Amino acid sequence: MRLSHYFLPVMKDTPAEAQIASHRLMLRAGLVKQQSAGIYTWLPLGLRVLKKIETIVREEQDRSGAIEILMPTMQAADLWRESGRYEDYGAEMLRIVDRHERDLLFGPTAEEVVTDVLRTFVKSYRDLPLNLYNIQWKFRDEIRPRFGVMRGREFLMKDAYSFDVDQAGAQRAYNRMFVAYLNTFARLGLKAIPMQADPGPIGGDLSHEFIILAETGESQVFCDRDLVDLPPPGRDIDFAGDLQPIVDQRTAYYAATEEKHDAGEFERRVPEKRRLSARGIEVGHIFYFGEKYSKPMNATVTGPDGQARPIHGGSYGIGVSRLVGAVIEASHDEAGIIWPEAIAPFQVAVLNLKAGDATTDAAAETAYTALTRAGRDPLYDDTDARPGAKFSTMDLIGVPWQLIIGPKGLEKGVVELKERRTGAREELSLEAALTKLGAA
Amino acid sequence: MRLSHYFLPVMKDTPAEAQIASHRLMLRAGLVKQQSAGIYTWLPLGLRVLKKIETIVREEQDRSGAIEILMPTMQAADLWRESGRYEDYGAEMLRIVDRHERDLLFGPTAEEVVTDVLRTFVKSYRDLPLNLYNIQWKFRDEIRPRFGVMRGREFLMKDAYSFDVDQAGAQRAYNRMFVAYLNTFARLGLKAIPMQADPGPIGGDLSHEFIILAETGESQVFCDRDLVDLPPPGRDIDFAGDLQPIVDQRTAYYAATEEKHDAGEFERRVPEKRRLSARGIEVGHIFYFGEKYSKPMNATVTGPDGQARPIHGGSYGIGVSRLVGAVIEASHDEAGIIWPEAIAPFQVAVLNLKAGDATTDAAAETAYTALTRAGRDPLYDDTDARPGAKFSTMDLIGVPWQLIIGPKGLEKGVVELKERRTGAREELSLEAALTKLGAA
Repeated sequence: MRLSHYFLPVMKDTPAEAQIASHRLMLRAGLVKQQSAGIYTWLPLGLRVLKKIETIVREEQDRSGAIEILMPTMQAADLWRESGRYEDYGAEMLRIVDRHERDLLFGPTAEEVVTDVLRTFVKSYRDLPLNLYNIQWKFRDEIRPRFGVMRGREFLMKDAYSFDVDQAGAQRAYNRMFVAYLNTFARLGLKAIPMQADPGPIGGDLSHEFIILAETGESQVFCDRDLVDLPPPGRDIDFAGDLQPIVDQRTAYYAATEEKHDAGEFERRVPEKRRLSARGIEVGHIFYFGEKYSKPMNATVTGPDGQARPIHGGSYGIGVSRLVGAVIEASHDEAGIIWPEAIAPFQVAVLNLKAGDATTDAAAETAYTALTRAGRDPLYDDTDARPGAKFSTMDLIGVPWQLIIGPKGLEKGVVELKERRTGAREELSLEAALTKLGAA
Repeated sequence: MRLSHYFLPVMKDTPAEAQIASHRLMLRAGLVKQQSAGIYTWLPLGLRVLKKIETIVREEQDRSGAIEILMPTMQAADLWRESGRYEDYGAEMLRIVDRHERDLLFGPTAEEVVTDVLRTFVKSYRDLPLNLYNIQWKFRDEIRPRFGVMRGREFLMKDAYSFDVDQAGAQRAYNRMFVAYLNTFARLGLKAIPMQADPGPIGGDLSHEFIILAETGESQVFCDRDLVDLPPPGRDIDFAGDLQPIVDQRTAYYAATEEKHDAGEFERRVPEKRRLSARGIEVGHIFYFGEKYSKPMNATVTGPDGQARPIHGGSYGIGVSRLVGAVIEASHDEAGIIWPEAIAPFQVAVLNLKAGDATTDAAAETAYTALTRAGRDPLYDDTDARPGAKFSTMDLIGVPWQLIIGPKGLEKGVVELKERRTGAREELSLEAALTKLGAA
């Protein structure tokens, strides 16, 4: 992408309304623009990151055997009356009346809709297990939207729903999502810690939040330090196999959110120097709720004995748009964002320090073409801005590699390659730089 | 994908509520489930097609130089009060009041939001031209939703918005979208005819609908037959070059929707045997509206002379979810859907006619593995359903190629390859079949 043809509205000043680093940086780097309280337009750079996160989430859901569907944003209130949640949900639910005076709502979650899908089509235990997931915009009418996309009102969520004949099957489904989540967050460059959590309005007995540690986190969390650095299971895990040992290994450690925290137990079970009490950001939440929705909504299957029984369900959420903010909270410095390569909006930036100078233009074009052909998705700053402005923009938007091409270097036969994460700079020939970037 | 692990709820009976072929087939083939009037859940098979169409639309927008952003579904009523459309839009707009008594609406289109983005960030003619597009769910509270996704209430639309300094630039932007649309619809296997159209609530002077011919179309259209079969410009077109000749070539022919039709002119300009009067489905609509939004919303840029002037705008829509229905209207037979290869949910179906039989299983597994490795995205019917049921399901869901593997054929050393479109069947060795399918 040539910057001269792109839309990248970066801001020099720090926006006054932003209280935390990720919110400030998302506004300054031109990732989003607020349209109303807690409602954002995703600008080109932000949308690129959002889509890369979405793709990783999708790939790991697919790998675990979950199947993608897409449920509508507008849901019928009647389904929520069946489950009993329409009145319970409170003021966070955005309630709507259509032109025929029918009650709709903007789905904050989709247990009711997906249970309706199931009861319509699935009749026999032979059709289970099934896990259906959905990546769709949700709405929660937060009383005080804040922290940018971290606590917005309209947000992109991946929500999966498992359906099994019995509790043992549901536990296996829960384990599959537990493991898929560990892998998903690891691919995003995050250390997400599974913690015992309060199920809240989703309901059920068994629930884990996946928490990343950050000073600006909204919740206080408590865990054993040794849990934080456990490596992810990895993509070669067999989702048809027994995943209980992987789950047990994690849940054997003490790890709880504030609502579930038991100070006495924490002190008994965790040696003092391993006790971690910190702020955390919730990036995922999984629930086993058994028959909570299937019973009132009459979602049953006939078992091998010919008897109908309610399906055992669970649900599994990942805050896809929130993750953009969470990654930035976990990975930035004074100068700006530091994207992990897996979700960087561009992999490499090419900086032409003297656009209009024939030699510099030629070298920069060569680099841009080679990187494009190699699928390295470069952003080429071909504008006539000053070098200083180019450097700070690229540091701000956090592209992992900067290839800096200027007339002085070219006279010596070199370009400069800078790694955003470490700040390390290296002078080398253009050819060597392209080789290092996988494009020669 | 193994059918035994998939979620493909096909229906034997024709649903009574569906009046047109595409709606019937989308329900029967398990592409969608209606949740409320005009509101659908996209089931796995339907979502695959929707995403493939979305990808083609996106690729052609990118190729034309448009830049993707993502605007929220919930829009502030105040923006629409600025443009003057809040009261004008009428009962099709879904109006919402949030917990703080602020007026929101579910965007039926996004001229106001995108104009707000522009006026926030773009100040100089040097930042133009710009075309920002958006693939997002929209809502129009149709009084009588019907024909399935063809006239739903919640629908997926690609909407692009061009911004130029003057009318000449805006005409070039209009031409780029005109050409991109011709290529987009051609890749979807559709003959879409650009026709003079009424701009309706979007406004402006210049507007074309892209219409595909279908008996079940909602509008009556009139055109010169010679226009229908003009080949698309193709992907090698230079979008930086002069596209006016390509647009002129099309617009020289008579082609108009009912609202713009002039019977006298039609008869004068088109020889009788070339006069086509038919039903059509609108799949795209483009508008040039100049200063209609920029003036009231004060979206200006300073020109080279230092004077501020309102931006010249246009907008460009494609009904992405509607296209799923439109393609089926254009491509089906008695037995079911016939997907064009570019958007088929799976490219090849492998039918195991005797699951459990060791030889048949081995051959089918070999085929499935080879097709998967070759990236041919096969659907493998590994269930123990009867052959007749397997044949009719595959014809119904319209996968382009069926590779039929049974014990009788294997005894003779052959499998059967059936092309869905022609119905042609061929007996050949498994190896030859895989070669033909690009997987050996």
